[in-house]
Amino acid sequence: MFMTEEGFKVTPWEVKGRIDYDKLIKQFGIEPLNNKILTRLKKHTKDLHYLIRRNIIFAHRDLDWLLNEYEKRNKFYLYTGRGPSGHTHLGHLIPWMFTKWLQDKFDVKLLFQITDDEKFMFKEKLSLEDAKKFSYENILDVIAVGFDPKKTKIFLDTEYSKTLYPQAIRVAKHITFSTTKAVFGFSNESNIGQIFFTSVQAVPAFLESVFQGRNVPCLIPLGVDQDPHFRVARDVLPKLGYYKPAIIHSKLMPGLTGNGKMSASDPNSTIFTTDSPEVIERKIKNAFTGQQATIELQKKLGGNPDICSVCQYYKFFFEQDDKKLEGIFEGERSGKLLAGEHKEDLAERAIKFFEEHQKKREKAKDQIEKFMLRD
Amino acid sequence: MFMTEEGFKVTPWEVKGRIDYDKLIKQFGIEPLNNKILTRLKKHTKDLHYLIRRNIIFAHRDLDWLLNEYEKRNKFYLYTGRGPSGHTHLGHLIPWMFTKWLQDKFDVKLLFQITDDEKFMFKEKLSLEDAKKFSYENILDVIAVGFDPKKTKIFLDTEYSKTLYPQAIRVAKHITFSTTKAVFGFSNESNIGQIFFTSVQAVPAFLESVFQGRNVPCLIPLGVDQDPHFRVARDVLPKLGYYKPAIIHSKLMPGLTGNGKMSASDPNSTIFTTDSPEVIERKIKNAFTGQQATIELQKKLGGNPDICSVCQYYKFFFEQDDKKLEGIFEGERSGKLLAGEHKEDLAERAIKFFEEHQKKREKAKDQIEKFMLRD
Repeated sequence: MFMTEEGFKVTPWEVKGRIDYDKLIKQFGIEPLNNKILTRLKKHTKDLHYLIRRNIIFAHRDLDWLLNEYEKRNKFYLYTGRGPSGHTHLGHLIPWMFTKWLQDKFDVKLLFQITDDEKFMFKEKLSLEDAKKFSYENILDVIAVGFDPKKTKIFLDTEYSKTLYPQAIRVAKHITFSTTKAVFGFSNESNIGQIFFTSVQAVPAFLESVFQGRNVPCLIPLGVDQDPHFRVARDVLPKLGYYKPAIIHSKLMPGLTGNGKMSASDPNSTIFTTDSPEVIERKIKNAFTGQQATIELQKKLGGNPDICSVCQYYKFFFEQDDKKLEGIFEGERSGKLLAGEHKEDLAERAIKFFEEHQKKREKAKDQIEKFMLRD
Repeated sequence: MFMTEEGFKVTPWEVKGRIDYDKLIKQFGIEPLNNKILTRLKKHTKDLHYLIRRNIIFAHRDLDWLLNEYEKRNKFYLYTGRGPSGHTHLGHLIPWMFTKWLQDKFDVKLLFQITDDEKFMFKEKLSLEDAKKFSYENILDVIAVGFDPKKTKIFLDTEYSKTLYPQAIRVAKHITFSTTKAVFGFSNESNIGQIFFTSVQAVPAFLESVFQGRNVPCLIPLGVDQDPHFRVARDVLPKLGYYKPAIIHSKLMPGLTGNGKMSASDPNSTIFTTDSPEVIERKIKNAFTGQQATIELQKKLGGNPDICSVCQYYKFFFEQDDKKLEGIFEGERSGKLLAGEHKEDLAERAIKFFEEHQKKREKAKDQIEKFMLRD
């Protein structure tokens, strides 16, 4: 699953090429979110989140089982996380907002893991100090999303290791180097911290069961690139007497500059939560739209919303009304919507959103300790 | 260094065959304790410990450097440890008594690591709960040895992981799987906790420097089978800005049943600190002496003290007076000392020693918290 034979590569640490999600579903062995399971989900949530309606939240593992348990009043908890390699960007916020929707709809607890250890071990030049600094920056964004402080617990791996490490070694005992080679593509030159790490990421998938001293179902909303960790964890956890966690997978938000995932390593590909209005405007003005070479040609031939990053930004976040989104897409297809206007409108919405977010982010500074899980 | 091509094998987890220590010195690349370094050591310690005089403490790394620093008033600290896979036996106590001698002579701090994580990950059937139970059993023996509670700090890896884990990943980032394969003989089927573990064992070799915020020399007295861990750590620590730890190596105490290291997996090969006088007497009566097949032959031909486990028990611990030891060895060689008498005398001394030790061990039960380092 880490080979590029199909023209793309998806691992927790590298996403390359244009992902064919149908192929990925087969590669990873995950289930598409079909009508049957969505109908069942909707029975509990009343409506379906726009990310689900748009097939951006597109796949799952064992969601049927999770709903069975829920219907038997065996309530689940949510677990998601963040690798703090830099500032938070829009590509991170969107799955968190979806996670908050799940928390609100099901009224459940959330464990939020900040993997500063991971980023330190995988980024050659990142110091532990910087990973920690980014962790606390990122936590402000997590809090700004509006999670319920009574039901949400955030922790850093390095700060919470008194709890995590003794659990991680229980997992590690059941994972061979062979497995990590096959699943993550590690080599003999991988460092031994990288090799060990997946056992740390597995812990929150059963930690609530440890806390409660009984088996508690877990649902992990994640970007599909993180799935390999839990493919391994799902093999191990039953050996420790825990449920396999259920998973709900999100597609990766495309970058502003064209194909591929938004990436902090290409700052123009995404909008960071700390960007000023000027920077947001510039980034969107420089965005890739895939429109024709001239205005005349665009008016005549139209553009392709599927490769237009501005259209995709509306789809992923900035236009949550499906009819209005279709209007925008139609404008792009028909050639009526020209790049300049298209971008100006998006920039306006983005600036407004991030101004709001930054206010919440400021307020979050006083709330950190309410959210932190410390040992 | 983990191959058996020379008829023996020494790794931290397996000792096989009769160790040729001259060959091991070359294999491991360690320095014999020659007269020059011993004379220098004696300048500070006034006398030399019987284990040094008998070449049981037989090799080192960078002891010259450590004494240079000491003479420049850059005092070192000691670090040693224990893998809690079972009850403590005599083979463990002896290097601890040597460590206490070093602590007394140099008036230095000792960090004592209990690697319950290691034993859990390397012993398929050992639970974490049992590793912890053995840890606290073993700690009683450590305390009974008489370490200075003001200068000695003991910790369990799983309980002290808030401090250890963030330091261990700093080490892990610099160690590849290739290195652990070459040094420890790991394979693709090794579990990822085993592979990671050496980075946890490395931490106490620089932890005092972390505590003090300045570089503090470290001396590690250890059984030579543990050297591979620090061969790796000595490569990594300078990259983190710390000194390479100095090491002083002990030979492995032979078992009562014949060749090889004393081993908790063969309970008759050693005396546990919890053994009753009856058990001690039985084990020693059944010990291998290498004497001739009959009393007549023994009187005529004599025995070989180098393979006689009773003689070796005197040498390693029960007769610390060199002249008296030579008398015992001579008795064995000449055939004057017969197995029955030989064993009875040893049993008497052993029973007396362990009775004393068990009293101290009882007293230690109230002292544990004085020694524990907790985070």
